[in-house]
Amino acid sequence: MMEPRISLVTLGVRSLRRSVRFYRDVLGWTTNYAEGDPIAFYQLNGMVLGLFGHEALAKDARVSPRRRGFRGVTLAHNVRSRRAVDEVFVQIRRGGGTIVKPPEVAEWGGYSGYFADPDGHLWEVAHNPGWKLDKRGAVVLP
Amino acid sequence: MMEPRISLVTLGVRSLRRSVRFYRDVLGWTTNYAEGDPIAFYQLNGMVLGLFGHEALAKDARVSPRRRGFRGVTLAHNVRSRRAVDEVFVQIRRGGGTIVKPPEVAEWGGYSGYFADPDGHLWEVAHNPGWKLDKRGAVVLP
Repeated sequence: MMEPRISLVTLGVRSLRRSVRFYRDVLGWTTNYAEGDPIAFYQLNGMVLGLFGHEALAKDARVSPRRRGFRGVTLAHNVRSRRAVDEVFVQIRRGGGTIVKPPEVAEWGGYSGYFADPDGHLWEVAHNPGWKLDKRGAVVLP
Repeated sequence: MMEPRISLVTLGVRSLRRSVRFYRDVLGWTTNYAEGDPIAFYQLNGMVLGLFGHEALAKDARVSPRRRGFRGVTLAHNVRSRRAVDEVFVQIRRGGGTIVKPPEVAEWGGYSGYFADPDGHLWEVAHNPGWKLDKRGAVVLP
């Protein structure tokens, strides 16, 4: 079964520099973002906040980037293996859920897919070999 | 300063019953939701997932419920006192952030306000006397 966990909340942004300034300089949160990076991560309470281009985020989830259809937010649930990703999708398929992007090998070296909840909120289920999960399943950024 | 933390992710939904079924029966997550409740909470990894009517959620944040303007998602950052809520809003105002709803006493017995990030993603900052924060600031549902 899919454990009750959000590993990553990713917000689609129009200007990564502008948003990094807001979260880093106004809120005061730490990021390892460096000029030119395509994405910015912030270590939060056992989970991660990501900032990523609106269009790029929509493309990753394989949905239309039009504001109307895509809310610019994805929620991610990370697991410990590729097999565990597949298992979640079996569970979703069995329950009649909507699979948006079946799991596949990702450019960033992991394995992930997306499903939608009844209102179209997007959940990514991912195995990222570069991100460790602690005993409770919380993400710890490298 | 606002600590790096998301306490609650709330998803706006069209039918609470339908969504509770999905998260409870398809994903298998535990909720204390009872028929007729206006909102459903799920205890996750030191944070909470909330399901709430799309219109009601927009109203709470004091934004238009039209799909186009409102993404149907809010992120909440809970703190330990009303004063701490006010302090965050001073920080946001000082940084030139957009205050959507200045903090006020809420019907549910707490104190909260909303600000928007540069792309309009909504953050609620709240003190909820009924929700305890552990040492690390993670929410533990009663």
